[in-house]
Amino acid sequence: MQIYNNILVAIDLNDEAEPVSKKACALAEKCGAKLHFIHVTEPLSYAYGGDVPMDLSAIQMQLQEHAQQRLDDFIASHNLQDCGQVLCNGHIENEVHRVAEDIGADLIVVGSHGRHGLALLLGSTSNSVLHGATCDVLAVRI
Amino acid sequence: MQIYNNILVAIDLNDEAEPVSKKACALAEKCGAKLHFIHVTEPLSYAYGGDVPMDLSAIQMQLQEHAQQRLDDFIASHNLQDCGQVLCNGHIENEVHRVAEDIGADLIVVGSHGRHGLALLLGSTSNSVLHGATCDVLAVRI
Repeated sequence: MQIYNNILVAIDLNDEAEPVSKKACALAEKCGAKLHFIHVTEPLSYAYGGDVPMDLSAIQMQLQEHAQQRLDDFIASHNLQDCGQVLCNGHIENEVHRVAEDIGADLIVVGSHGRHGLALLLGSTSNSVLHGATCDVLAVRI
Repeated sequence: MQIYNNILVAIDLNDEAEPVSKKACALAEKCGAKLHFIHVTEPLSYAYGGDVPMDLSAIQMQLQEHAQQRLDDFIASHNLQDCGQVLCNGHIENEVHRVAEDIGADLIVVGSHGRHGLALLLGSTSNSVLHGATCDVLAVRI
């Protein structure tokens, strides 16, 4: 039985990315599944409740470039060049769901603490990853 | 890399038990892990907020026997006799955590909808399975 074919791994590029990706890689190898990594940055305006008194687009672009560099470094240093990778900017759960559907993911892997982990699953927003996910979700304990 | 050694599968003995156990079995086979099944019944008194005007112990015992029969039937009909099985009565998340620690589970598998699924992960109580779990949690989408 083919358990999973397409695994989407949501990483925060902090300490938890290491154990989460390690577990996901091992699982993908066992299952013969393709791995895809996603990192989501949130728009700066979210921090101000959307009411921003200045144009943050230049800063946002710099942050995005910085995130892309860190994602590239992570992929390269872990020999994950054969995996899919995507950097998004938006609501974390929305972006994870959107990409999961785009690639036909049958499993989403997230860390189970930290901003992109527990928050996703326990859902401070009504559309948490689990609520909206159309596939399985594995929370890797950090 | 040995991903998981002891997988605890929380089942509700309703429709979701089938896909959840199927996924857990396939995963256990891939990983060479031992499977354990847990079903938790809640004390009748919970339905009354603990303020029960009558002795429910006889009814509770009947319900427990009925649950044990259903668990036995499930185990037998799915050829899971080699797996561990435990029937508990109490708070679902507490019992799942307790048994997970008892058996040294490194993965808990639950259904991602239904009473024993989503509720566990999204946690109407502060001690949801994910919050208190000391191991990975896989939510299987039904």
